[in-house]
Amino acid sequence: MPHALVVGIAGGSGSGKTTLTDALMDAFGEKVCIVHHDNYYRAHDDLTYDERAALNYDTPEAFETELMVEHLRLLKQGRSVHCPVYDFRVHNRSGETELITPKPVILVEGILIFAEPELVEQMDMKVFVDTDADVRLARRILRDTEERSRSVRSVVDQWQATVKPMHEKYVEPSKKNADIIIPEGGRNKVALNLIMGHIRRYLEVGADSFPEIE
Amino acid sequence: MPHALVVGIAGGSGSGKTTLTDALMDAFGEKVCIVHHDNYYRAHDDLTYDERAALNYDTPEAFETELMVEHLRLLKQGRSVHCPVYDFRVHNRSGETELITPKPVILVEGILIFAEPELVEQMDMKVFVDTDADVRLARRILRDTEERSRSVRSVVDQWQATVKPMHEKYVEPSKKNADIIIPEGGRNKVALNLIMGHIRRYLEVGADSFPEIE
Repeated sequence: MPHALVVGIAGGSGSGKTTLTDALMDAFGEKVCIVHHDNYYRAHDDLTYDERAALNYDTPEAFETELMVEHLRLLKQGRSVHCPVYDFRVHNRSGETELITPKPVILVEGILIFAEPELVEQMDMKVFVDTDADVRLARRILRDTEERSRSVRSVVDQWQATVKPMHEKYVEPSKKNADIIIPEGGRNKVALNLIMGHIRRYLEVGADSFPEIE
Repeated sequence: MPHALVVGIAGGSGSGKTTLTDALMDAFGEKVCIVHHDNYYRAHDDLTYDERAALNYDTPEAFETELMVEHLRLLKQGRSVHCPVYDFRVHNRSGETELITPKPVILVEGILIFAEPELVEQMDMKVFVDTDADVRLARRILRDTEERSRSVRSVVDQWQATVKPMHEKYVEPSKKNADIIIPEGGRNKVALNLIMGHIRRYLEVGADSFPEIE
């Protein structure tokens, strides 16, 4: 039976999760696949754009986590999955899917993944990227205005209305589920070396003989 | 020229630093030496016991850090040092010294080591053990009453008078200097495996070819 190393990468909005996952994808290429919690935002075809825009997207209920858990189980069994693809511009699923093929290392990425016990159970290593709230807001404003065609006003309003309070309610407490917390994510070279060394060792020695302390 | 991997292990009083360092000492034995900041508390032969007992031991000024930095430099050059030995029962240096011989891996342990830029500069990997304040107080009370012949009252008074405020003033901000933060120190098996894997790899491949991202 195949075996995979499942690495969870969580952290608040703008914390640097993507920089970290990009570095791991670059380093391990074909040995790694990635599953984004964001792609499992629930579909809301029944709502208008304005109704969808008004929803709270920063709470665990916004996600179809049960589908993501099922997909992770399949990937760990060596089976491919078709994950939904979310379109942030329309606040809805795009209708497209993305084929994810199983790999020895599975990255799981998302703001709220450590707030979901069923997801946490699937992970072998849980990394929380910890970055100050002001730095995260600055990055979020830049990303959402430059890449997602949002106005600064709408980003700031959303931050104050849901991102910040939901961060304090769900994300911050979920940090307790992390195995390691790394300040300043992908720019933290020592932590990146540590995680990359761990993955490299896993790939070299194989799952069966991977040293573990019980 | 010899080379050593210097691993700093910081965290508040009772956080679990010792459990972590013990696990690393057990795993790597003769390949590791350890330098405790506590042993570099300043000597106060000029003061009475009561005067010494009234000092603030939870501030960076309480330590002769410059001597510890000098000792670390010597150990990294492959030279032995005689470090002072502190006696907590009398709140003073014991007059004895301990021979530390240089090893490929040097652990540096202490509550305030990340609050001292000169110490931080000496370290290749900085690990902060993060544990809730109530759990740390509980451990401190048990340790100081059972191993250091202190009364519960004196431990709690010291906690409220200096340990807690100094933690918030110096230790908590120094967490920003950490490369990785690990919740619940030595009992965190995933983090322990990660750090042990890093050290093992350093010992196997040697310092010169140790993979680093620049």
